[in-house]
Amino acid sequence: MARNDTKARAGKAAQKTNPNRMWGGRYALGPAEIMEKINASIDFDRRLYAQDIAGSMAHADMLVAQGILTAKDGRAIKRGLAQIRAEIESGKFRFSTKLEDIHFNVEARLTDLIGPAGGRLHTARSRNDQVALDVRLWVRDTIDRLENMLRDLQSALIDRAEEYAATIMPGFTHLQTAQPITFGHHLLAYVEMVGRDRGRLRDCRARMNVSPLGAAALAGSPHPIDPRKTAKALGFDGPMANSLDAVSDRDYVVEFLGAASLAAVHLSRLAEEIVIWCSAPFRFIALSDAFTTGSSIMPQKRNPDAAELIRGKVGRIVGAFVALCTIMKGLPLTYGKDMQEDKEPLFDAADALELCIGAMTGMIRDLKANPERMRAVASADYSVATDLADWLVREIGLPFRQAHHVTGVLVGKAAAKGIDLDKLSLDEMQAVEPRITAAVYGVLTVEASVAARKSIGGTAPANVARAVKEARRRFLGPAR
Amino acid sequence: MARNDTKARAGKAAQKTNPNRMWGGRYALGPAEIMEKINASIDFDRRLYAQDIAGSMAHADMLVAQGILTAKDGRAIKRGLAQIRAEIESGKFRFSTKLEDIHFNVEARLTDLIGPAGGRLHTARSRNDQVALDVRLWVRDTIDRLENMLRDLQSALIDRAEEYAATIMPGFTHLQTAQPITFGHHLLAYVEMVGRDRGRLRDCRARMNVSPLGAAALAGSPHPIDPRKTAKALGFDGPMANSLDAVSDRDYVVEFLGAASLAAVHLSRLAEEIVIWCSAPFRFIALSDAFTTGSSIMPQKRNPDAAELIRGKVGRIVGAFVALCTIMKGLPLTYGKDMQEDKEPLFDAADALELCIGAMTGMIRDLKANPERMRAVASADYSVATDLADWLVREIGLPFRQAHHVTGVLVGKAAAKGIDLDKLSLDEMQAVEPRITAAVYGVLTVEASVAARKSIGGTAPANVARAVKEARRRFLGPAR
Amino acid sequence: MARNDTKARAGKAAQKTNPNRMWGGRYALGPAEIMEKINASIDFDRRLYAQDIAGSMAHADMLVAQGILTAKDGRAIKRGLAQIRAEIESGKFRFSTKLEDIHFNVEARLTDLIGPAGGRLHTARSRNDQVALDVRLWVRDTIDRLENMLRDLQSALIDRAEEYAATIMPGFTHLQTAQPITFGHHLLAYVEMVGRDRGRLRDCRARMNVSPLGAAALAGSPHPIDPRKTAKALGFDGPMANSLDAVSDRDYVVEFLGAASLAAVHLSRLAEEIVIWCSAPFRFIALSDAFTTGSSIMPQKRNPDAAELIRGKVGRIVGAFVALCTIMKGLPLTYGKDMQEDKEPLFDAADALELCIGAMTGMIRDLKANPERMRAVASADYSVATDLADWLVREIGLPFRQAHHVTGVLVGKAAAKGIDLDKLSLDEMQAVEPRITAAVYGVLTVEASVAARKSIGGTAPANVARAVKEARRRFLGPAR
Amino acid sequence: MARNDTKARAGKAAQKTNPNRMWGGRYALGPAEIMEKINASIDFDRRLYAQDIAGSMAHADMLVAQGILTAKDGRAIKRGLAQIRAEIESGKFRFSTKLEDIHFNVEARLTDLIGPAGGRLHTARSRNDQVALDVRLWVRDTIDRLENMLRDLQSALIDRAEEYAATIMPGFTHLQTAQPITFGHHLLAYVEMVGRDRGRLRDCRARMNVSPLGAAALAGSPHPIDPRKTAKALGFDGPMANSLDAVSDRDYVVEFLGAASLAAVHLSRLAEEIVIWCSAPFRFIALSDAFTTGSSIMPQKRNPDAAELIRGKVGRIVGAFVALCTIMKGLPLTYGKDMQEDKEPLFDAADALELCIGAMTGMIRDLKANPERMRAVASADYSVATDLADWLVREIGLPFRQAHHVTGVLVGKAAAKGIDLDKLSLDEMQAVEPRITAAVYGVLTVEASVAARKSIGGTAPANVARAVKEARRRFLGPAR
Repeated sequence: MARNDTKARAGKAAQKTNPNRMWGGRYALGPAEIMEKINASIDFDRRLYAQDIAGSMAHADMLVAQGILTAKDGRAIKRGLAQIRAEIESGKFRFSTKLEDIHFNVEARLTDLIGPAGGRLHTARSRNDQVALDVRLWVRDTIDRLENMLRDLQSALIDRAEEYAATIMPGFTHLQTAQPITFGHHLLAYVEMVGRDRGRLRDCRARMNVSPLGAAALAGSPHPIDPRKTAKALGFDGPMANSLDAVSDRDYVVEFLGAASLAAVHLSRLAEEIVIWCSAPFRFIALSDAFTTGSSIMPQKRNPDAAELIRGKVGRIVGAFVALCTIMKGLPLTYGKDMQEDKEPLFDAADALELCIGAMTGMIRDLKANPERMRAVASADYSVATDLADWLVREIGLPFRQAHHVTGVLVGKAAAKGIDLDKLSLDEMQAVEPRITAAVYGVLTVEASVAARKSIGGTAPANVARAVKEARRRFLGPAR
Repeated sequence: MARNDTKARAGKAAQKTNPNRMWGGRYALGPAEIMEKINASIDFDRRLYAQDIAGSMAHADMLVAQGILTAKDGRAIKRGLAQIRAEIESGKFRFSTKLEDIHFNVEARLTDLIGPAGGRLHTARSRNDQVALDVRLWVRDTIDRLENMLRDLQSALIDRAEEYAATIMPGFTHLQTAQPITFGHHLLAYVEMVGRDRGRLRDCRARMNVSPLGAAALAGSPHPIDPRKTAKALGFDGPMANSLDAVSDRDYVVEFLGAASLAAVHLSRLAEEIVIWCSAPFRFIALSDAFTTGSSIMPQKRNPDAAELIRGKVGRIVGAFVALCTIMKGLPLTYGKDMQEDKEPLFDAADALELCIGAMTGMIRDLKANPERMRAVASADYSVATDLADWLVREIGLPFRQAHHVTGVLVGKAAAKGIDLDKLSLDEMQAVEPRITAAVYGVLTVEASVAARKSIGGTAPANVARAVKEARRRFLGPAR
Repeated sequence: MARNDTKARAGKAAQKTNPNRMWGGRYALGPAEIMEKINASIDFDRRLYAQDIAGSMAHADMLVAQGILTAKDGRAIKRGLAQIRAEIESGKFRFSTKLEDIHFNVEARLTDLIGPAGGRLHTARSRNDQVALDVRLWVRDTIDRLENMLRDLQSALIDRAEEYAATIMPGFTHLQTAQPITFGHHLLAYVEMVGRDRGRLRDCRARMNVSPLGAAALAGSPHPIDPRKTAKALGFDGPMANSLDAVSDRDYVVEFLGAASLAAVHLSRLAEEIVIWCSAPFRFIALSDAFTTGSSIMPQKRNPDAAELIRGKVGRIVGAFVALCTIMKGLPLTYGKDMQEDKEPLFDAADALELCIGAMTGMIRDLKANPERMRAVASADYSVATDLADWLVREIGLPFRQAHHVTGVLVGKAAAKGIDLDKLSLDEMQAVEPRITAAVYGVLTVEASVAARKSIGGTAPANVARAVKEARRRFLGPAR
Repeated sequence: MARNDTKARAGKAAQKTNPNRMWGGRYALGPAEIMEKINASIDFDRRLYAQDIAGSMAHADMLVAQGILTAKDGRAIKRGLAQIRAEIESGKFRFSTKLEDIHFNVEARLTDLIGPAGGRLHTARSRNDQVALDVRLWVRDTIDRLENMLRDLQSALIDRAEEYAATIMPGFTHLQTAQPITFGHHLLAYVEMVGRDRGRLRDCRARMNVSPLGAAALAGSPHPIDPRKTAKALGFDGPMANSLDAVSDRDYVVEFLGAASLAAVHLSRLAEEIVIWCSAPFRFIALSDAFTTGSSIMPQKRNPDAAELIRGKVGRIVGAFVALCTIMKGLPLTYGKDMQEDKEPLFDAADALELCIGAMTGMIRDLKANPERMRAVASADYSVATDLADWLVREIGLPFRQAHHVTGVLVGKAAAKGIDLDKLSLDEMQAVEPRITAAVYGVLTVEASVAARKSIGGTAPANVARAVKEARRRFLGPAR
């Protein structure tokens, strides 16, 4: 509903007579109504209040340290900012669309609270470097939170992988049964993906951890400021090297959204598998009441809604990446108002990813596997054919392609009789390849098949048990 | 802030003991907290309340007409629904996340208000066809509103085109001066684009104007319903032909977003031109206080923020198209919860486009051209070179490529002397091509150049005046 | 390999001394090597040769008819163009990167063949309106071809729907068994989707069917041309109304790609279903050798590769839509070289869609359903629970929500005993709801369930048979 | 042309009688024609030949070292592979669509050349890990090449920044003149962006530099292989930890495309600036004949085509990112044929980016600035207003907001008289703020303005000179 009333009566352009309080010095008339509506960002950038105030406090401290501001003014400013933060967090702050954005809303209130000293805070600063700082801090905070959540997800996956280290399931390619694998091995594949996702977020964080403060509007400041001080106070590695870049750069938003897109793609893959595994013909797993919903018309349904929502949310996250690239495409330096469009897609994508990780972690902890059903499917469809081919290569030295051919003929025979490979008699086998011996039956069970795949990264239960330990060491150090 | 508290404590999955009131019959336990959070849509689908209630009223009427519901129950239901609508519109309605979505929120309240009869409304219906209906109605309403706004934009463009029908400006290719054109002609190019945008929206509306009601969950209904009746009551052309398609189809959302993307691309092109035209070196136009903002640090600035925001907003609209295609990609029939992800991108894109059209219409009405500056740039850079080449073809029969070559040599001569083409003496011209006569000077002014381009669609002022009339006839019939 | 040698030695910018033959009149030096490489389009736009030549022929005819060209020159030009077309189609034409694009390649060869008269063809024309024409004609041809292919796909779907009109399968929501449906009904859902796809292509075709010729470079022409003549000769509804729009417009490419994206999304949904239906646990259908591939290591595999490729190709088609929107975003009028980037994504997406439709049509004709397996899954999981609820509403007048609740309790009872609903005794049923009678058993079979759903659009076999006839009438008129 | 003949005659599905030579053991019939067409990848994956052969050589060496292959077979295989590479590079190799892909084409030829030993190469390997390896190696090679090219671009930018370290130009926000800056400072902003682009590519390379070999089809191998050996031989840090992940992972493609998208966005911004700077009203720079093209109809034009093409190519690169995310969305493990769709967008995007970097580097080295014009624009429009405000803050202690207000009034006065700020008399200034002294005139020139901005990252010429040295140190170490 909130924006339903966008009755953009543009033609009329009902102008206000009171110009903007912050920059309206030379303006005879205020903006058109539609202009105010499209221009104001306070509805969404208020979410940056904590970052905005933290940045202002660091700026004030630096101004005092450099002798640009008196210690008294500095104290008044910080007291005022602290009060504003409290007002916002208690829901008492009155945000004003007329004041456009979080920066002006805070500054105007600061001047109300502490008088003209409030107006000194903006020395050697501009909204251009201020918003660049706020978004940067927000992304950094968000990365830290998401990385911890991804670590929790890995923890859940590893726990279940340990539990199901020897549980046999069919390994699919093309969703066709290919070879038997273990469920633990399958879950650990996602631990690897999430590990890379964490790596991408960490790299993004490291690259973006420089401070834009000091760039002022675009060209740097003639005041004797020290950008190293604000950078240090805010946890940055240092100030940015070029002031024009500092106010024009939204790389960290795009890079974050790229990393988020890939993380969401991974979650969508696991979600798809959960949906398929929960289907009646599969029944590989079941989710409890905690992670399914019912139907308003079909009382027997247990819908894996969370998995579907996770699968769907990748759409808006990739969409946000596209939005940002489209916004930044072809923008001349330095700041353009187009960049204000970065925030809503960013917030939306980060929220969506957070929900997805949380729900997926919950589902992983919640799901219950059905090992009998998994094994039954794994055992069907000649899933050990490759083991036969490998045996022919290893034991009687057939070239792989020839072994492949022999195996194909034997599978054809078995299929024609409607029996499993290990139900073919030795005679029947030798009729195709005389050198086959009874030893071959030792590799024609799903248990033998998985146990044999003990090469590095292979699915053997012993491997999986080791990989679980290894994964705990690699990924589950103390949370950041 | 609203979603800042997404503290997805997934691992704990704090389960509630009270299962869902609407479908929880068989559920021993309620959903995990994170499940409720990711699953509930009431925060955004409440925006469909009017469509939801209109649909329910039509459904109730049909059930009564078919003898499935008593007239008394029908009256109670409609009275209850009317009251709920009033409660929502007056802000008194208490939306509940527990009740997931707008459908359950309305139905639960209906039962509170009128008792068990409320439970009869859902006969021969499911949330699957209900939400398909609501979104469809919302898109239809939105198309109607946007089409009227686009018509207003055309009206503004045509008015200004009439005013500037003979105002000469440089026509650019590659942002290089190519030939003189008229500003009115330039504005009319956008009238054509917007005309196609309207056409796409109309086609989308016509294609989507069929009713999904009667599909129930997915398979149709065993009750003696008449989907033609609900279709007619809600202004549809008829019911959909296939119930599975009815609940699985989101084509109208994707098609709408595709049309919106293209409309936004058009607006971004005009916005870019406005930004460039407002720049100091160009100064082709000026915007008033009503459509510019100031700077917090540079008091002299007049920033065309609205144009930049319009240029930027195309990003989220294209992003929404990508989101929907990604969501729908590879979804098996019929309804999947993934589809719930359609609404937020749809709402966001529609709002953004509405703002863009409104702001652009305002800017077009607001802008003031600077004909002197436009003419000065149009006259420089040998912009009438093509007129010379055309004269050589027309009057002395040179093949075009040869005329092109002769013109190039003459431009080179003029450029070397730093003078305009019409300042070359006849002798100088004849030294290159002896057949040139003094008549050539008649085509070497920007006024002559534009006046000569009177072929269909050409830029001649007389053409533009005619095109203005034609455009009013084609596009500005009575609003729908 | 083709472009592997892009050894963009930019720093050196090895300049050639022979400037461009077509526009180099004033140029002292030729382009840098990297410039030639990035600029030339002949590697891909040669694909437009037929359209380019057809357009030139129509232009020549018009110039003759208007007295701008002599009949003799006109004949020579058309003879030369016909020869060039023959040379290209027989593979003898030597395309030159130096001549940049298809337009210059053809024109240069024309002059080689017929002398200076070749240079007269470009009178009152520019590459700007020429390429706009070529791409438009190519899109129009492609739409016609694709529409016929989509019609074939519908034909295949309808044939199989007729064959399987009474074949019971589970209807899924959330990939959970919801209610029994018929396979024919399911296939007809896709006939509806494809029908809308055809509608979108037709609308796109109708909107784009106007001619840009006459716009020349951007401003129209001073020659006494008649754009109506060329428009008519080329099958257009008429000339475009605004010359600037004519050379700047790529709407038809974007709109086509939007329609193609949605068509590809539909195909991806069906492809996903085919992949799932072919999986071992489902086995709803089988594909023959003609539409599966084997594995190099697992001889028993029958992989539905074509379905997976169709599912994957939606990616590049949506990507092409994004590419075009990104390219056009923020482009000032009129022609910019950016627009040259429209062709490769367009060609690639059209080729991909054509392959997808063809392969899907083949698979639909090829697939063999497994009705026993489908029925078995459809009968499990209390899929007739809704029929029970509907019976309670219809026969004993329970409000739907209460019927839903009673059904839930009965399903719970049956599930606890591990039996189907119709295996509950009447006593057991009446213990929950005393008004239940033995008549209830009549609705508790999958056959009864589907037969009952005979509301408009419902899944009853009788409906499906009727819908098949109706679909043939609506969609399979004579091919265009 | 190449794919123009996609006459997907799907309905007929003309089946061949000779099944696939590599996996057709059990197949009675060959694939449908359309199936072969959609399935074959040899038209594009032949580009991986060098990586494929290098991988096979390393695999053969490992098999020999592990005693799985005899030394003699190993030598024969490597000799055969070397010959195949030579055949391909000399253009003599006959690629076959029947053999589907590069892997089968090479293997079949190997067996032709060396007999049955060729068939032993595939021991403990599958096309699944083979293609994963090939693409990975290709991306790694491409990253290395692109990083060197980006370094060249930085080198070009730094050289020109040094040259123009003190050249004053207008700094823009919203394309409105904001404050004077130096052209060198502006160019260095792009050096920072490109530096981040390189960092992203390096991070991607580091993360992807693990070997998938040993995963075989999906589950690992029962042969006594040593994946560490192949990993080391191919320059990887080690083998991948999970075999399922090894064959399912395309993260490195997506991450590469994300980094490429952002690099392309940066280039598009600089390209847009070049286009604008080359426009007649700006004339800030000129490009030589080497990087401009002419018009076929307007002989005086010098079009910055390369800049426009760079600006446009960002479209297909972002489109490729979307394509890959869409392809991977919701794919169940492990390998699906959908993944074959990764290559063409990857190749296309990498080629496009390579062209863009090369052309941009050439343009940067080619461009010639027009310092007089830049300075003239920088001096207009009260661009030193901020300096006045800063002076009021610094020298007479006004709070910034008040200084802003005073400055606004003075700008208004000057504008009303049509004069620059430093042409206002001291009296006029003091009438607004009595404490202003004659010293103020010292900050009211563009030279003073830029010289004053010597804070870290600021635009002062001295800063720029230092930043040039610093950038050489940070970015131009020896090429990798």
